[in-house]
Amino acid sequence: MDASYLIHALREFVKERDWGQFHTPSNLAKSISIESAELLESFQWTDEVDIERIKDELADVLTYCILLADKIGVDPDVIVMEKLEKSAKKYPVEKSKGNSTKYDRL
Amino acid sequence: MDASYLIHALREFVKERDWGQFHTPSNLAKSISIESAELLESFQWTDEVDIERIKDELADVLTYCILLADKIGVDPDVIVMEKLEKSAKKYPVEKSKGNSTKYDRL
Amino acid sequence: MDASYLIHALREFVKERDWGQFHTPSNLAKSISIESAELLESFQWTDEVDIERIKDELADVLTYCILLADKIGVDPDVIVMEKLEKSAKKYPVEKSKGNSTKYDRL
Amino acid sequence: MDASYLIHALREFVKERDWGQFHTPSNLAKSISIESAELLESFQWTDEVDIERIKDELADVLTYCILLADKIGVDPDVIVMEKLEKSAKKYPVEKSKGNSTKYDRL
Repeated sequence: MDASYLIHALREFVKERDWGQFHTPSNLAKSISIESAELLESFQWTDEVDIERIKDELADVLTYCILLADKIGVDPDVIVMEKLEKSAKKYPVEKSKGNSTKYDRL
Repeated sequence: MDASYLIHALREFVKERDWGQFHTPSNLAKSISIESAELLESFQWTDEVDIERIKDELADVLTYCILLADKIGVDPDVIVMEKLEKSAKKYPVEKSKGNSTKYDRL
Repeated sequence: MDASYLIHALREFVKERDWGQFHTPSNLAKSISIESAELLESFQWTDEVDIERIKDELADVLTYCILLADKIGVDPDVIVMEKLEKSAKKYPVEKSKGNSTKYDRL
Repeated sequence: MDASYLIHALREFVKERDWGQFHTPSNLAKSISIESAELLESFQWTDEVDIERIKDELADVLTYCILLADKIGVDPDVIVMEKLEKSAKKYPVEKSKGNSTKYDRL
């Protein structure tokens, strides 16, 4: 799917319902935490994967992430790639390989 | 940017460091919550937007979301679009317009 | 320890630093989520218990919980007991015993 | 209320339902994050205080905190007081007074 199609569909959805008034960066950040916890809830007492439930909750987290990125004027894919480049320098392969202790303090 | 390029770069980053062993769906869900809270921390005492900090933390949330989607074999953009279609039915424009009370219980 | 001693010590700590201005109910709720995620971080890649780290992070969660209870004028122990009584009715022993499916949707 | 009465009531509630099997430290830490997000949800789109809802959600956070403290063998009030003493040294009054910048990185 074309990512620009997705952001236009999301903007239209919000605009039609006049919900943009609620979408301050602060409220969107709260929403990302809230939806992340609903995703975590599917693992509250088990490590088993309920794929339909996870898809649904993960989509909610992603939706608010995309709306926040749009609000501050950045492209989600671009900031992930930029961060990946920073992380690649911070965690050189030779020092990080298979090392959860190091990784643990990401 | 081509989204398929991004997922390949992420997979390569993880593989080189042998970090896939830590990336169970449950651990990735915890990681999404943890990074979401770091994003929220930039709004802990203020509504002001520190754009560089937000970009950085939002990228971390998105990275773990993309890794979880990849782990369970779904495309992030596709599940967001599918959820949007469900939400459009659940919140018809005429009943939802400008209504935070309704929205509040999304 | 006397719980009333604790709340007085916390109030004094906040007052001396003039930090009450930051402690709106909304900011305290954000703080509880943020500190909960720091606690969760000690279990991000492992189920092993790092007791000193957990004590430290759990204390932060509890501190903000006590400050929020104080802000809205309730006693932490009393609201826990009241909720316990509600839960006892909602989850009768005979239906809930050893049942994580039911419990999962608490 | 006597805090030792509360912990005994909580232990009895859990034991009667045979729910102790689900209460690993890791699962309790997840539960604290999940309930914290439900508390945060009451502030998702507003700073207004819905006191009954907050009491209810805050009680859930506190309940899991008390269960985790009990699981690792510490007294909630004692660890809060110990942390307060550490924080008092870390944030001396003269340097911290009214300073959200400093506080922001607690």
